[in-house]
Amino acid sequence: MLTNDTLAAWDRESFFHPSTHLAQHARGETASRIISTASGVYIEDRDGKKMLDAFAGLYCVNVGYGRPEIAEAIAAQAKELAYYHAYVGHGTEASITLAHMIMERAPAGMSKVYFGLGGSDANETNIKLVWYYNNILGRPEKKKIISRWRGYHGSGLMTGSLTGLELFHKKFDLPLAQVVHTEAPYPFRRPDSAMSEREFSAWCAEQLEALIAREGADTIAAFIGEPMLGTGGLVPPPEGYWDAIQEVLAKHDILLIADEVVTGFGRLGTMMGSDHYGLKPDLITIAKGLTSAYAPLSGSIVSEKMWKVLEDGTDENGPIGHGWTYSAHPIGAAAGIANLKLIDSLGLVANAGEVGGYLNAGLADAVGGHAHVGEVRGEGMMAAVEFVKDRESRTFFDASEKTGPRIAAALAERGVIARAMPQGDIIGYAPPLCLTKAEADTVIGATADAVKAVLG
Amino acid sequence: MLTNDTLAAWDRESFFHPSTHLAQHARGETASRIISTASGVYIEDRDGKKMLDAFAGLYCVNVGYGRPEIAEAIAAQAKELAYYHAYVGHGTEASITLAHMIMERAPAGMSKVYFGLGGSDANETNIKLVWYYNNILGRPEKKKIISRWRGYHGSGLMTGSLTGLELFHKKFDLPLAQVVHTEAPYPFRRPDSAMSEREFSAWCAEQLEALIAREGADTIAAFIGEPMLGTGGLVPPPEGYWDAIQEVLAKHDILLIADEVVTGFGRLGTMMGSDHYGLKPDLITIAKGLTSAYAPLSGSIVSEKMWKVLEDGTDENGPIGHGWTYSAHPIGAAAGIANLKLIDSLGLVANAGEVGGYLNAGLADAVGGHAHVGEVRGEGMMAAVEFVKDRESRTFFDASEKTGPRIAAALAERGVIARAMPQGDIIGYAPPLCLTKAEADTVIGATADAVKAVLG
Repeated sequence: MLTNDTLAAWDRESFFHPSTHLAQHARGETASRIISTASGVYIEDRDGKKMLDAFAGLYCVNVGYGRPEIAEAIAAQAKELAYYHAYVGHGTEASITLAHMIMERAPAGMSKVYFGLGGSDANETNIKLVWYYNNILGRPEKKKIISRWRGYHGSGLMTGSLTGLELFHKKFDLPLAQVVHTEAPYPFRRPDSAMSEREFSAWCAEQLEALIAREGADTIAAFIGEPMLGTGGLVPPPEGYWDAIQEVLAKHDILLIADEVVTGFGRLGTMMGSDHYGLKPDLITIAKGLTSAYAPLSGSIVSEKMWKVLEDGTDENGPIGHGWTYSAHPIGAAAGIANLKLIDSLGLVANAGEVGGYLNAGLADAVGGHAHVGEVRGEGMMAAVEFVKDRESRTFFDASEKTGPRIAAALAERGVIARAMPQGDIIGYAPPLCLTKAEADTVIGATADAVKAVLG
Repeated sequence: MLTNDTLAAWDRESFFHPSTHLAQHARGETASRIISTASGVYIEDRDGKKMLDAFAGLYCVNVGYGRPEIAEAIAAQAKELAYYHAYVGHGTEASITLAHMIMERAPAGMSKVYFGLGGSDANETNIKLVWYYNNILGRPEKKKIISRWRGYHGSGLMTGSLTGLELFHKKFDLPLAQVVHTEAPYPFRRPDSAMSEREFSAWCAEQLEALIAREGADTIAAFIGEPMLGTGGLVPPPEGYWDAIQEVLAKHDILLIADEVVTGFGRLGTMMGSDHYGLKPDLITIAKGLTSAYAPLSGSIVSEKMWKVLEDGTDENGPIGHGWTYSAHPIGAAAGIANLKLIDSLGLVANAGEVGGYLNAGLADAVGGHAHVGEVRGEGMMAAVEFVKDRESRTFFDASEKTGPRIAAALAERGVIARAMPQGDIIGYAPPLCLTKAEADTVIGATADAVKAVLG
């Protein structure tokens, strides 16, 4: 049995952690937590400390931790056939079955799913498919991608460019030239608080129109957006937003990519976020909830309209030069099948709507009236509390005060994990979809205490 | 139990296969093979047909199929803790232990490992780190990456740009502007067959010097290469190549990225290809052999020299804005630990050298004298047979004759899977490292028969 000291030493010697302050970690200034087991909404570290994970890992463990049904499916697949590739038409019973199950759950008009490993690589695939599509259609200039400020679509070179958050651009020379950003559909931060939600949606559509006019519609291939903003602040779209945006896109023959990495498979209280908000996408990105993170797996769901063109492309050019060694990995596929079955059998989509609504209402009741709470917002099993220096004038704390991180730390002291989002003083909640009302009460109570402890 | 007909129908309805001719697959013109189980070097499909997989999936199943030790490690991890993230210093016993084991096996001068999912995303991470590094050092113009024609480094937008093969560029608008290519170290295709290997290596270094001079050394950040060319043709470097190249890189302060996705963990008969050929890289890409594909996992190994700068970067700029949800996934880490232990306990590195040498010699004996065989080459458990129209003049068949694919098909009819490489008429072999001499004899015999059947 390895001691905690040995592991801590190995960790600092050998392990390059993602999204970490490397120098502080190396100096031992940040807590390094080694997680050993987990069950339901609780995780437990090697010191025996238990925490309620109200962010479901990185909003991915939709069915909750420790589900034996998924562990057993993974074990059986590992024993029978851990790996074979999916190139040149190869498959396994698991990968084909999961493709079928995904398409049963996809919105109308979708055709096929390409399997990747995580959300970033699935969005990378999407951009490649968009470019290929317009090349096959003989529109080589129609290539730019419009994303939104505060959108999150990954942290690769292209996908980090799509992401509209400063942390993911700074010092990486991003965004790349092919990506342009438009306004975030973020009502709380709208330019004029006298605007109604519908007026703000219309304003967002006008800004998009103006951007397209500046760039030239013939240069714009696609628009990418999360049905509901995630890492940028957990913000439901303002009323009428997606109708207004889709009207602009249709007018200029611009494809719509719905990034459902967070919203897919139940989180909003509907199977897919596109159905929740009336999106009719040409491509859909899925990951996280597809396997509830029990194994890495993502997907790009391609519409019938695009698929026909991709097929024509291979008749003109031969096999499509795109593939990951681990596309459609059997372990991920087995996990995905067991996971989607559990989401159905446990009624987790409905629970996300019901208990998510209870959590959102409870947070609003508990801290919505606090002098430093600007907004409590959410949808389904996603919620956010945004802190402000002054409510009336909507002025924000200086980032150096670290208000968000201090609230998250105070919550952790009280045994609840919520996430200080990277831009703004925003605490995000995205628990497993199996959260009970009693567990929601724990989250709400800890939040009220933490806010009081930090901000009085 | 699903029938084969049901699966075939679902497959064509729902499944977007990587690296596939989509239109032919949709029309049912290509064989769609559903793999059901596998053991050692043999895979078996749903019709009960067994094949000797002399390409180890996509040269990734280093330990061979059906190893219970890895399946059990995956099962135990799935039961105990299938997932927790590694952001902000978090870890698990498995991920920390594997990081330590990787660094024990890494060449001298390396410091830390960042975990990804597959080779493409690990190379994407590498390019991001190179750019970040030069930004922290105050060299914002030093950003271009030099890759080699016929190198293979992935199929994303950046990584497909690094790849120097036409199939991966065509219709995807690649390579991106930040990538430039230099000569392939491919002795069989050297410009003047009178050159010795050493002379050809010196010529490659001169071409690199000339490219750097044209672009400006101040604009070149890094050079990426596989220790031995893989998908571009399975070509061992000519004598003196890496010494000559590294001398040029050092002179111009250009980082070296060793892409060891294929060569890492034993394939050349040494633990790492860098040690095999004397590379002293600043970054090393690992994937495939790290888990033998039992679960998706890759890594970027960062040198001490670069690590210090990355740490300074986070002191200046805060947490590094780079992370995948599934970085250091516990299932992948558990598979990696069990896999590296098996590579040691079964003596597979030594076996790769010994039986690989036997396979290479046997192929040379069996077909090296054939009128349409231009070269038989290889190193460790990698081998290639390159076909030519005419030996003396080194003229090649027209691609439309599909000589390589026809030989691969003839091998498949004889129960052996080898791969027709994407550019040139080259049959590649990269069996599991546990291949026995008797199994090598099967591969050699089938090759002799297949060549005779197709080319007389």
